[in-house]
Amino acid sequence: MEIRKVLLTEDEIPRQWYNILADIKMNPPLGPDGNPITPEALAPVFPMNLIEQEVSSERWIDIPEPVLDILTLWRPSPLIRAISLEKHLDTPARIYFKNEGVSPPGSHKPNTAVPQAYYNKVFGIKKLTTETGAGQWGSALSFACCQFGIECKVFMVRVSFDQKPYRKSMMESWLGKCVASPSSETKAGREILEKAPDTPGSLGIAISEAIEAAVSDTTGKTRYSLGSVLNHVMLHQTIIGLEAKKQLEKVGEKLPDIVIGCAGGGSNFAGIAFPFVLDKMNGKDISIYPVEPAACPTMTKAPFVYDHGDTARYTPLLPMHSLGHAFVPPPFHAGGLRYHGMAPTVSQLIAEGIIEPKAVTQLAAYDAGAVFARTEGFIPAPETTHALACVFDEAKKAKEEGKEKVILFNWSGHGLLDLGAYQKYFAGELEDFDLPEEEMSQSKKAFENFPKPQLLKSF
Amino acid sequence: MEIRKVLLTEDEIPRQWYNILADIKMNPPLGPDGNPITPEALAPVFPMNLIEQEVSSERWIDIPEPVLDILTLWRPSPLIRAISLEKHLDTPARIYFKNEGVSPPGSHKPNTAVPQAYYNKVFGIKKLTTETGAGQWGSALSFACCQFGIECKVFMVRVSFDQKPYRKSMMESWLGKCVASPSSETKAGREILEKAPDTPGSLGIAISEAIEAAVSDTTGKTRYSLGSVLNHVMLHQTIIGLEAKKQLEKVGEKLPDIVIGCAGGGSNFAGIAFPFVLDKMNGKDISIYPVEPAACPTMTKAPFVYDHGDTARYTPLLPMHSLGHAFVPPPFHAGGLRYHGMAPTVSQLIAEGIIEPKAVTQLAAYDAGAVFARTEGFIPAPETTHALACVFDEAKKAKEEGKEKVILFNWSGHGLLDLGAYQKYFAGELEDFDLPEEEMSQSKKAFENFPKPQLLKSF
Repeated sequence: MEIRKVLLTEDEIPRQWYNILADIKMNPPLGPDGNPITPEALAPVFPMNLIEQEVSSERWIDIPEPVLDILTLWRPSPLIRAISLEKHLDTPARIYFKNEGVSPPGSHKPNTAVPQAYYNKVFGIKKLTTETGAGQWGSALSFACCQFGIECKVFMVRVSFDQKPYRKSMMESWLGKCVASPSSETKAGREILEKAPDTPGSLGIAISEAIEAAVSDTTGKTRYSLGSVLNHVMLHQTIIGLEAKKQLEKVGEKLPDIVIGCAGGGSNFAGIAFPFVLDKMNGKDISIYPVEPAACPTMTKAPFVYDHGDTARYTPLLPMHSLGHAFVPPPFHAGGLRYHGMAPTVSQLIAEGIIEPKAVTQLAAYDAGAVFARTEGFIPAPETTHALACVFDEAKKAKEEGKEKVILFNWSGHGLLDLGAYQKYFAGELEDFDLPEEEMSQSKKAFENFPKPQLLKSF
Repeated sequence: MEIRKVLLTEDEIPRQWYNILADIKMNPPLGPDGNPITPEALAPVFPMNLIEQEVSSERWIDIPEPVLDILTLWRPSPLIRAISLEKHLDTPARIYFKNEGVSPPGSHKPNTAVPQAYYNKVFGIKKLTTETGAGQWGSALSFACCQFGIECKVFMVRVSFDQKPYRKSMMESWLGKCVASPSSETKAGREILEKAPDTPGSLGIAISEAIEAAVSDTTGKTRYSLGSVLNHVMLHQTIIGLEAKKQLEKVGEKLPDIVIGCAGGGSNFAGIAFPFVLDKMNGKDISIYPVEPAACPTMTKAPFVYDHGDTARYTPLLPMHSLGHAFVPPPFHAGGLRYHGMAPTVSQLIAEGIIEPKAVTQLAAYDAGAVFARTEGFIPAPETTHALACVFDEAKKAKEEGKEKVILFNWSGHGLLDLGAYQKYFAGELEDFDLPEEEMSQSKKAFENFPKPQLLKSF
């Protein structure tokens, strides 16, 4: 019997998050006047304790005890060696994955939902608003708010709302309230609906609605919560990589040769990768790949610019790879990978050449997902299959090169609420999408008049 | 931070199953002539290595290494102390549950699917047929067959097939083939469809179809597989209770005071309970409760008789609590608890007064399920909520009595593919079902001419 699982006990859980802002130089977010925004300017949107975390440059930040208390409902998550997959691929590589699907909502998202709900609760906030793509984030925030006894309102991208009706029930299980976006509940939503009543929606639109719903609450007790992109979200997710590091040590592995995570807004990737980026910046030889869908090629085809995080331009200008804040991707199924931008921290690492983005097509991703399910058993989320397609490529390369590489990837979530998409895939009804160059250049007009970020070099 | 999870490493996994046939006296299954059937008579239905296990009276049976290899994809499963639920119920009881929802199909079912697929494979079988109610079993057998490279054909009870379309996709993920039952593919199915084209179906009917599909394959390479009821199925599930026992010892608990599992055919209950039944038979003071839906009251309202396991009367006569082999329960949502009979071993323990069955209503079950999801996070399967309703009752009793009882229950699976039912529950559209006395006495006519089992006393 070969050992598959590497477990940590609860008292081995990391007590601090890793903050990459201590180790890289960043362009600041800019306000409407083109000047760096002040923390105070964000106060209507986020509680001040989270804003302080957003701008902190402390390398290690303590995880509050009440947050650890909730995280241990499922954490530490298992690190699993994919022995059956290795055999199937006949590769000399050793493939390890963090199973983030073991959380109650089934993904890595509650790693940040729980601390965000906690800091808001401590700050006296009674209600959080948010957007969700695939539904993973809306579920996670509903779950976290339920744990701390605060309300949760979710604007869910229309195309996913229709494709995944069970997501709404899941949110309701945790007392969350969910509407399809664009909705008629906000000015931003109504304006879009007037112009394009049949729009599939987008994360950019849903973010606009959620921000508007938060800042327009006159009681002052509502704030907005974002499931990716921002520095504090990346921070909270580093618990994944920090656990993985301990777990690899436990089985006598040194550092991985390759680290892989799919990237929509960047938090799942950052979670597994940032602790190893630190090693790489300290001179270790590690290849680090964020993976995106070819039909939403933010990292591989879009420039590093200043752009808004949302369609209605409520957010500050963020320095990031962006397809343009009005970009609406084709209706492929990985709802969590449909964002027009990319986390500024991840974008900065790409700009500096520390990490190397990859793009894969929808069908290649599902092919890999199906093989994974038939070898390792667990059915991956459509987002996760994108990481898998890259893992397969690297495992094959290791075979060609005859090298015993160690590949670590983040199994960001299970696909049990995405079986409708698998059904189409099995029936041969899924297709790949072309993204016409013309549409790309059209959407890039969104940021052509904005300032340009500097090409800072951290070292 | 209080410790919630009690983990075992893979090398602590039990290496033997516990076989309760070593410790209790049983009435034999009877053939069509009223005499005990021989193992050979079962040979067209099951492979001989499993038939030998079915009739074995060895107390401990080795788990084959290739079976352990697959089980460790998710086993040992965590034992979790439900600290948040305890606080919510304000009970002095310590509540522990085995999380069997961590398996790839999401329930305890693969614990027996994997060894059954293995023994069939070793015996040279190329294809297995089976029935499924909620879809948990069909998924589990598809998964197991996929691991060993044999075909799997599933007859799924119509009402569940319609309520849970994602189950079919899950089976397809593991290359299983699934049709709604009754189907036109078998004589048994066609006869039912002629009489009652709109029937919701039943496990009894689906079993008939699956057996017929197996024995009518003229190549001799197809066998039938059953997900519950039989002795070898109960045997395979005891790994749950054996792990739980080790885990309770690890945290310094002596034996539990109360052991609870929901019971449809009996295997989930047997899995957690039989190792503790052994302690009880050795004089320990343990209350052991199998829990069923009030709308399918096999254990609490039906007599201990000889009856067929299926509607078309293909199976031998089994000594069990039965509502009658033609019984079709009302369309409540816990598809796994809709069986007309109960495992002979579980029935025998009830007859001897060693275990004490309970019945709960659908709404009480969902009430408990929703509270569990909002405290412990994980959303339970509708079947599991029945065990939960009983756990809640016992936790409240412990509070009234001011006693620090230890309650152990089996969290048999998650409800992520049952969110449609939760949606109805949240919308106030779920109802309880009355089972008219008249209908009960009508269905009991099914076995009135059969022999009666003896009231054997094991000690």
